[in-house]
Amino acid sequence: MAERLIVVGGDAAGMAAASQARRRRDRADLEIVAFERGHFTSYSACGIPYWISGVVPDRDQLIARDPATFRDSFDIDVRLRHEVTTIDLDRREVVARDLARGGEVREGFDTLVYATGAVPVQPDWARGGVDGVFGMQTLDDGSALLDWLEQEPKPRHAVVVGGGYIGVEMAEALVIRGLTVNLVEQADQPMSTVDPDMGELVAEALREVGIGIRTGLRVTGLEERDGRIAAVVTTEGPIPADVVVLGLGVRPNTALARAAGLPLGPTGGVRCDRRMRVPEVPGVWAAGDCVETLHRVSGLPVHIPLGTHANKQGRVAGINIGGGYATFPGVVGTAVTKVCDLEVGRTGLRERDATAAGFEFVAVLAESTNRAGYYPGARPMTVKLIAERPSGRLLGAQIVGWSEAAKRIDALAVALWNGMTVDEMTALDLGYAPPYAPVWDPVLIAARKAVDALAGTGR
Amino acid sequence: MAERLIVVGGDAAGMAAASQARRRRDRADLEIVAFERGHFTSYSACGIPYWISGVVPDRDQLIARDPATFRDSFDIDVRLRHEVTTIDLDRREVVARDLARGGEVREGFDTLVYATGAVPVQPDWARGGVDGVFGMQTLDDGSALLDWLEQEPKPRHAVVVGGGYIGVEMAEALVIRGLTVNLVEQADQPMSTVDPDMGELVAEALREVGIGIRTGLRVTGLEERDGRIAAVVTTEGPIPADVVVLGLGVRPNTALARAAGLPLGPTGGVRCDRRMRVPEVPGVWAAGDCVETLHRVSGLPVHIPLGTHANKQGRVAGINIGGGYATFPGVVGTAVTKVCDLEVGRTGLRERDATAAGFEFVAVLAESTNRAGYYPGARPMTVKLIAERPSGRLLGAQIVGWSEAAKRIDALAVALWNGMTVDEMTALDLGYAPPYAPVWDPVLIAARKAVDALAGTGR
Repeated sequence: MAERLIVVGGDAAGMAAASQARRRRDRADLEIVAFERGHFTSYSACGIPYWISGVVPDRDQLIARDPATFRDSFDIDVRLRHEVTTIDLDRREVVARDLARGGEVREGFDTLVYATGAVPVQPDWARGGVDGVFGMQTLDDGSALLDWLEQEPKPRHAVVVGGGYIGVEMAEALVIRGLTVNLVEQADQPMSTVDPDMGELVAEALREVGIGIRTGLRVTGLEERDGRIAAVVTTEGPIPADVVVLGLGVRPNTALARAAGLPLGPTGGVRCDRRMRVPEVPGVWAAGDCVETLHRVSGLPVHIPLGTHANKQGRVAGINIGGGYATFPGVVGTAVTKVCDLEVGRTGLRERDATAAGFEFVAVLAESTNRAGYYPGARPMTVKLIAERPSGRLLGAQIVGWSEAAKRIDALAVALWNGMTVDEMTALDLGYAPPYAPVWDPVLIAARKAVDALAGTGR
Repeated sequence: MAERLIVVGGDAAGMAAASQARRRRDRADLEIVAFERGHFTSYSACGIPYWISGVVPDRDQLIARDPATFRDSFDIDVRLRHEVTTIDLDRREVVARDLARGGEVREGFDTLVYATGAVPVQPDWARGGVDGVFGMQTLDDGSALLDWLEQEPKPRHAVVVGGGYIGVEMAEALVIRGLTVNLVEQADQPMSTVDPDMGELVAEALREVGIGIRTGLRVTGLEERDGRIAAVVTTEGPIPADVVVLGLGVRPNTALARAAGLPLGPTGGVRCDRRMRVPEVPGVWAAGDCVETLHRVSGLPVHIPLGTHANKQGRVAGINIGGGYATFPGVVGTAVTKVCDLEVGRTGLRERDATAAGFEFVAVLAESTNRAGYYPGARPMTVKLIAERPSGRLLGAQIVGWSEAAKRIDALAVALWNGMTVDEMTALDLGYAPPYAPVWDPVLIAARKAVDALAGTGR
């Protein structure tokens, strides 16, 4: 008789695991059932801001593979609108509620993949359920916001709470849709995913497209009128709003895992080994935004919800479940984003992370250009490097620039992955031609500056 | 009394060495004299095609630092239009001819930097000195070509001989100037700096802008009329031309070095150690397009003339001459170029290089896009990887794409530098966001494909 694999959560990680397992084991060997609470499978959550702005016109463009494909081509029994409410490890079964038609189903499993993703952080003031307040985590969230924006009278004043990636991208999306937008951030600066010296460049770009930036204030509540949002109340007074988007980050969705007794780590995510196995529980695997992973630079566990990690982790789990061998060796914290025309990339540790992890370090900023200075279209580019002292080992890097800048972080991410020192990096053989770089690539200029800084501080 | 450093050749490598030595040793300690045969110091030879096309309007934009700056800010005695004719290692002196005013000077040295650059390959048929035939190596060459293009009657039909970087870039430059252009290449394909499967994409791009591509034929001579070029004679008949540009590559300029008894390597370049010292000759250093260097992947010496290497090598020599410590650890063969709108990047070994070096390997091509497929402006991108069999070690990579493609080769160059296997590379933490990459980055897709190919061929 076939074994049965149950996948809890049908987005990137869960469906990557399911399809990889299927590639290696056919139906006679492995039956696969996937429960998904929402209406969709395997979609690009990262693409939601571009759908809201209209840059991507059609929601379905964000869907990588629909349930029919999984059913027909992969022989995976996908059950949408089914919310798993219990994982019973002793009886090896799950209980799921059918959200569409009501009722419950029970299904036994031999193998389970826990891939429930993340849930938006919701402060107390956001729990009231005021109309016009939106998280932005799923396609269903996006649909709800778009419906709200289209109703009469059309909302005109948006407040985005939280200045991380999603907050900044949503602020820009709403400006593109013609709303006035205020971005509220408790810290001194939006985009705290980079250090303040680099984040200031992002703040300038946001101001230039007309986004109001309100930093250093805390949201304490919401004002409503006739059951609809009217203002966001802050420590510096109310900010009028007829639509509010929450971008306060997410946390691992582990309520079910906790109830079932799966081990959680210090970040709140499910703990896995490198093969994405939950070590203490035979036959149980986890992947995606609900797990924590190793940061290869600090050596500490981190929770970094990102589609690219979810896909990789799901694939690794699926290959292993299928009888193959694969590992997920951790992350170095790479992320890129576009803020208006400004490109931002980061990898590794920020100064605050390096300090928190106990490193001694130097940090340098190098100003250069994306092309040879004389080549048309040359634009400024700033590269920041953080290097351990006295070893010179690269700890982190950030890039901000106006054109063809962000993806250059990849070269630094690979250097970081391999534990290179900034001294070694000065010799790197990076591509040079006038349309692409000055004869000293911005990355090399920064590495040289870091070497000088290390020498000047007592190496 | 001050020691004396003599620099032979005042372009990137020589002047980088001179300025770095000066930073560490003042005039009372080290007198520096630099002889340069041409009219300019430290210019971007790589920028010449863009000056010819008019994309870069002014020649002086290509000059990084002029002689006055070296004299005034660095206290370096730069002597332009002085051609060194003899290096006498026994008497520790050089003899230089003053090309402008005639006569000879003799100068003694304690330390010498040999930085004479490269000279264009000139087949026998090009040695006659026919008017209208141009090498394209120096700013003086560029000026001469521009003068020729501006005279009446204006040349209208160009032939570019040689389909490497310079040939292809010059062909495009001449098309932009309104000439009809034929590109003649002895091999089956232009741009043999990438493998034929990738080079075919380049050939298509060249054809699309109207460049005539004539491959598989050999130039045997030139036809002149009234002392001016009239046609290029080939094994397939004459091709009319009123201007001819030679892009047949360059070789190390080592006539002086050979006469002086400096050691030359198998590539014809001066042999140096990692500190850019000529090991057998105390006090003599060399750097730039005249030296050979270690290819870190094959372990063999190579001659790769490129401004970025010349600058690095010159800097290393200068730091060491100045009493510091620096090494140039070799190259991995990275190069990028833009052909019309097509972006081309390569690093490491091509298939033919890998075969010649005795490697067994697999090669894979992965088709993907530069952005998420649904994000506006997504364009095709092809990544080729070559990996050693059975170890999986990356040996080489090539990228061709239409937008923001070429510089992605840097991440692969860093992977290559660190000896990564394609299996390790599948886990790399590369930047993901819809404007920059699909959720599986093209590089990761290619790495996965290479892993599959290795497994399928008996690992």
